[in-house]
Amino acid sequence: MYNLLTGLSVIEASSFVASPTCGLYLAQMGADVIRVDQIGGGPDFRRWPVTENNDSLYWENLNRAKRSVALDLGRPEGRELLQALVRSTGQFVTNFPAKGFLAHDFLAAGRPDLITVRVMGWTDGSPALDYTVNNAVGYPLLTGAGPEPVNHVLPAWDLLTGSYAAFALLAALRRRDATGEGGEVRLPLSDVAIGTVANLGSLAEVLTTGADRPRLGNTVFGLFGRDFVTGDGVRTMIVVVTHRQWANLITALGLADAIAQIERARGVSFATDDGLRYTHSDALFPLFEAAIGARTHADLAAAFDAGGIVHSAYRPMHEAVADPALVADNPIFGESANPSGAVYPAAGAFATLPGSERQSPRPAPRNGEHSEMVLAERLGLASGELARLIDSGIIGTAK
Amino acid sequence: MYNLLTGLSVIEASSFVASPTCGLYLAQMGADVIRVDQIGGGPDFRRWPVTENNDSLYWENLNRAKRSVALDLGRPEGRELLQALVRSTGQFVTNFPAKGFLAHDFLAAGRPDLITVRVMGWTDGSPALDYTVNNAVGYPLLTGAGPEPVNHVLPAWDLLTGSYAAFALLAALRRRDATGEGGEVRLPLSDVAIGTVANLGSLAEVLTTGADRPRLGNTVFGLFGRDFVTGDGVRTMIVVVTHRQWANLITALGLADAIAQIERARGVSFATDDGLRYTHSDALFPLFEAAIGARTHADLAAAFDAGGIVHSAYRPMHEAVADPALVADNPIFGESANPSGAVYPAAGAFATLPGSERQSPRPAPRNGEHSEMVLAERLGLASGELARLIDSGIIGTAK
Repeated sequence: MYNLLTGLSVIEASSFVASPTCGLYLAQMGADVIRVDQIGGGPDFRRWPVTENNDSLYWENLNRAKRSVALDLGRPEGRELLQALVRSTGQFVTNFPAKGFLAHDFLAAGRPDLITVRVMGWTDGSPALDYTVNNAVGYPLLTGAGPEPVNHVLPAWDLLTGSYAAFALLAALRRRDATGEGGEVRLPLSDVAIGTVANLGSLAEVLTTGADRPRLGNTVFGLFGRDFVTGDGVRTMIVVVTHRQWANLITALGLADAIAQIERARGVSFATDDGLRYTHSDALFPLFEAAIGARTHADLAAAFDAGGIVHSAYRPMHEAVADPALVADNPIFGESANPSGAVYPAAGAFATLPGSERQSPRPAPRNGEHSEMVLAERLGLASGELARLIDSGIIGTAK
Repeated sequence: MYNLLTGLSVIEASSFVASPTCGLYLAQMGADVIRVDQIGGGPDFRRWPVTENNDSLYWENLNRAKRSVALDLGRPEGRELLQALVRSTGQFVTNFPAKGFLAHDFLAAGRPDLITVRVMGWTDGSPALDYTVNNAVGYPLLTGAGPEPVNHVLPAWDLLTGSYAAFALLAALRRRDATGEGGEVRLPLSDVAIGTVANLGSLAEVLTTGADRPRLGNTVFGLFGRDFVTGDGVRTMIVVVTHRQWANLITALGLADAIAQIERARGVSFATDDGLRYTHSDALFPLFEAAIGARTHADLAAAFDAGGIVHSAYRPMHEAVADPALVADNPIFGESANPSGAVYPAAGAFATLPGSERQSPRPAPRNGEHSEMVLAERLGLASGELARLIDSGIIGTAK
């Protein structure tokens, strides 16, 4: 938690990963993010992983530091309360349909400077998810050694979309601060995916070569990078991105003479050309396999670290979360009570501001925990009115 | 291109993916992003994919809509010019080392309200890349069917870090606008990675269960989602995230009776529980395999679309870039002259603002294309002084 966004309040009506991630990043930087859900929880409220009591570890981490308002969104009065909250607040993040009861133009009729950031699936409003846009742009058929497609496990498109949504909201706020103009910002997962294919040069590559990139397994395209197995059986990734790293790597492995031989035989120099190190990997890889296979991981890691060479052993996630540098001794983690009751390190903002105090991570809310507080504060509902709406099941409160 | 960030100028001294992505997203929203590079290009200037002339399609897409200043950063006078540009501009994005000549505290000594966003590898300043932090947090050993680790091809951590950096810069600007306070924002790839493991509930999952999640191939954890093969041999991903989708899916496939039998036999109901659909997949998957294998993809796609069921066939990237909905007819793409001379659709901002005019994507600069203009405008260098610095090789200009 940092206070960069103190004073900014955002209504979030969302589920799954992308849109809640947007709200999470805003909240971890100090914004007051109010997540409005169906009473009892939206479609992501029990999303796995869950505890033995069926409390979602996913939900309680993607919704940290937010407040929760629970409404019956199936009834007109519940929908009207959400619409009123959006209008009274002026900033709205959602993945609800563009044409439904949360259409921007309808909401903005009562709040002309409203900013709505809407995460979508396809651009036409039809549904898509991380896995399906990933298929649509072609990455699973480039992942792994083949021939079967391989899905990524990390919901990369959701996360990138959520992060970009937080960026786009602040960009739109900057314009409104300067000009008074609000507006809707639509962000389809499919545009994030195909736009990324373009930004990385892959769209141009496919169109200019007329062919897909070959499937490379764990080899990195266009430079020297691959997984190797050390003499003691540790599989480790080595990637060379600077010419100094290349020089240090071949020195560390005692390969300078052998590589000079290849360079003479093939009439090339690998010293300052990533591409040649890639196109001649048929000659280079066997040398590295033998040199790396002859030494222990500990020995190599020390030599690589001394040479500024980028490497990292593959390891399972249970080892990652037990690594003190990543978690126990890492200031981005702190303690937090959690709705599930489970105790584990809680993450704050990814960024670290050396000059500013980092506050403890805050827990996710219980469903409806802040309904009365928020509706009183934003809409001026008096206690009698709140009681009536709670009794009639329009407003939910935390048990 | 949109003009949300008109009036914001940012100096970018960076290479590879994450930090340039931050600058790209800012530039595509209208910021004036000035990328400062070594004369002749930084370490990413020839990064693959490249054209036949060895021009980087990667570089010219990750650096669209920026201006370029080329300096000899190996010499004190070149470094001083970059430092002066940062101080005169006030906003700085970089992945240069925290303790080098671009250390924030040194730069801020001449510009107390400076905001520096620094992309890093590990938190201690040692180098890391997308591939190596991915290994360090455990995703490759969860990806694919096993037993070998599988790297993702999409540089997901770089992209997420770049996007978050753009968000963090705007958040820091918001604080500065309110309080006058600048500061450094450090963003290590490793913190983005382990923080994401936490945000998705996986850190809590591993610590509370004491075990890694099993490797699931293309099956989605915790809900009904997997790849299936249609009768005409199309492999397609189907993912159910709402109870309505589940009901529509079993109706579309004529499986209602067969599933009711399983529910009776096992004493469960799949109607409103994602988790049960996952834990009973041993019984469910064979039914779906048979039903999907008995029909053509076209037939199924129509039925799925009518039911709001999320599905997507795997396809290679060359088919994706030829899909009119994704590229040719998609307003995020436009025409752009490119430094390489290659002609292909160029991407603008991912987001679409229905009420605002989208301007054409702009090309990446040639190395040093804007050196004279920017140094005159920001530092007041007169033409004689510029000529002297160009002659002495401190300043590079585009050929």
